[in-house]
Amino acid sequence: MNEPFTKNDIKIAVIGGGTGSFTLLSALKKHAKQLAAIVNMSDDGGSTGVLRDELGVLPPGDVRQCLVALSESPKIRDLFNYRFEEGTFGGHSFGNILITALEKVTGDFNEAIQTASEILRVSGTVIPATLDNVRLKMEWPGASIILRGERVIAADYFKHDPRRAVLSLVPLANANPTALKAIEQADIVVIAPGDMYSSLGPLLVIDGMAEALQKTDAICVYVSNLVTKYGQTAGFTVSDHAGEIERFVGEPFLDYVLYNEQTPTKELARRYKKEDAYLVKVDKAALKKASYIATPGNFLGKMAGRNKSDILMAKRPLIRHDADAVVKVLLDLYDQASKRH
Amino acid sequence: MNEPFTKNDIKIAVIGGGTGSFTLLSALKKHAKQLAAIVNMSDDGGSTGVLRDELGVLPPGDVRQCLVALSESPKIRDLFNYRFEEGTFGGHSFGNILITALEKVTGDFNEAIQTASEILRVSGTVIPATLDNVRLKMEWPGASIILRGERVIAADYFKHDPRRAVLSLVPLANANPTALKAIEQADIVVIAPGDMYSSLGPLLVIDGMAEALQKTDAICVYVSNLVTKYGQTAGFTVSDHAGEIERFVGEPFLDYVLYNEQTPTKELARRYKKEDAYLVKVDKAALKKASYIATPGNFLGKMAGRNKSDILMAKRPLIRHDADAVVKVLLDLYDQASKRH
Repeated sequence: MNEPFTKNDIKIAVIGGGTGSFTLLSALKKHAKQLAAIVNMSDDGGSTGVLRDELGVLPPGDVRQCLVALSESPKIRDLFNYRFEEGTFGGHSFGNILITALEKVTGDFNEAIQTASEILRVSGTVIPATLDNVRLKMEWPGASIILRGERVIAADYFKHDPRRAVLSLVPLANANPTALKAIEQADIVVIAPGDMYSSLGPLLVIDGMAEALQKTDAICVYVSNLVTKYGQTAGFTVSDHAGEIERFVGEPFLDYVLYNEQTPTKELARRYKKEDAYLVKVDKAALKKASYIATPGNFLGKMAGRNKSDILMAKRPLIRHDADAVVKVLLDLYDQASKRH
Repeated sequence: MNEPFTKNDIKIAVIGGGTGSFTLLSALKKHAKQLAAIVNMSDDGGSTGVLRDELGVLPPGDVRQCLVALSESPKIRDLFNYRFEEGTFGGHSFGNILITALEKVTGDFNEAIQTASEILRVSGTVIPATLDNVRLKMEWPGASIILRGERVIAADYFKHDPRRAVLSLVPLANANPTALKAIEQADIVVIAPGDMYSSLGPLLVIDGMAEALQKTDAICVYVSNLVTKYGQTAGFTVSDHAGEIERFVGEPFLDYVLYNEQTPTKELARRYKKEDAYLVKVDKAALKKASYIATPGNFLGKMAGRNKSDILMAKRPLIRHDADAVVKVLLDLYDQASKRH
């Protein structure tokens, strides 16, 4: 798998971790565009963490979610999402076990993804952001706090402003050349919504990613998170979110930032409150001065119930984007930009 | 999966456990005949035993071996045969985990096999002999010895003559209707070589199997084991082996018994001795009087080394049939029988 795109259609690279990418890819797939999912590789918790620790493999979890999003076979998708409930395998996702076994059999993570893609009948390509076996580190210069490991960071309530923290991968992670090629060849690069310090940041600080994002001719779009994360991005506005994305990359590179301006219904607001979720505030004055074009939309998805597939996905949050609405705006932006050329 | 045969060609049903069926099916597959593998379902040891005990599933092990034998995809075959070497999954075969997850997701063992067959690109059908969750029991009437469980029986050195033992499944096992249909519709039914009391016997005593084997118009052939099993069938001749097969079924039903008359090379004999293996003796006088036609052949396969795939198969013995030679004789018998009609 050295060619991220193979068909003759709009090329879209989606950069992200698990859930945000999953939702966007699932919606984009319906439009049969050429899709490349560039996936976070710093996950070290849960089923993925055990497999990494015990078998020395690369993290399968986020890759699995992207594969499932792009799968054309509902039957095999259910199999990949199945999580054993008891016994020796309790808590393990079957898809993780499959990707791990394939990596062991082939000795090659790329080939493992290739074969898993065939089994799942995936449309598009799933590309690990790096093929180096790395762990995430977060530190505050001057302060003596160092957080090690993605799950530790994801669960922490930061004592200092995370905007002053340095995020890095240990050892230094080199970007997967296929991921860089996808960014270079794409017509649109989308930064999916996701956890800032345990999903998006870890991807953007990989060596080579910043340069690729600065150089590409693609339209670069960040789909801003809907809600803040308690103890991490509490109080962050839309421009704060976009600011962190660009800080990780080192300089402004975003052409558009898509943000939600829809007000939730009373019923939805009540359920948000129950989940301790606060909508990201729109700071219009700051957005007007930004180097990117801030584009509003009605992006609130229906709040997902805890149905069977949600439980299977485990990590999928209750508050989601209306991904179809996001995709519509994305494709409109592309059409407008094409006409200007 | 209610139709065992779907193409218009010679229909062959192979009845057996793991290795014997594996070898025969692998050779038969090359001739692109219509194949149905009817599989032993009393395995309760190793990886299969743990999965049965912890998750309450039907035994995946022998089914997996038959699926792999009939697979057209070497890549996915390697994946199914992969056995985890360490950690939580240590000792577990990936194929077993997959079949187990599929049974959990679909709630139906038949559907699990169906989907696994699609993933493996299987030519032919793999049919569990029974869909009842059963354990094997072996007892000697009058003696106070009862052996419970297939692996216990397989590992035992019998104190009494096994030809006087009663083999049964607990609770009573009903034959899978698709297995009975396969026997009814087949042109040839082959009893594959295998362990008499922990593989072939457990299959033949399933309620409904004996009647189907007696009623079918198919040519019924038993491919006699090559070597005796220490502590179990030591000293058994070819007619002793065939006699036990017919005892399980309750009356003579075999049309042919294929046996080996090839003498091993010095090198092969030396290696047999090392493995404590004794060739089954040919008792020509008894075979002449038998109700079946005893058909000799040169069936000694090359002795397999302990190469990678052997280690992966784990249970595959070193002494094997030359399955291609067996298949040639089988198909010749069929041709001759057809001409007589």
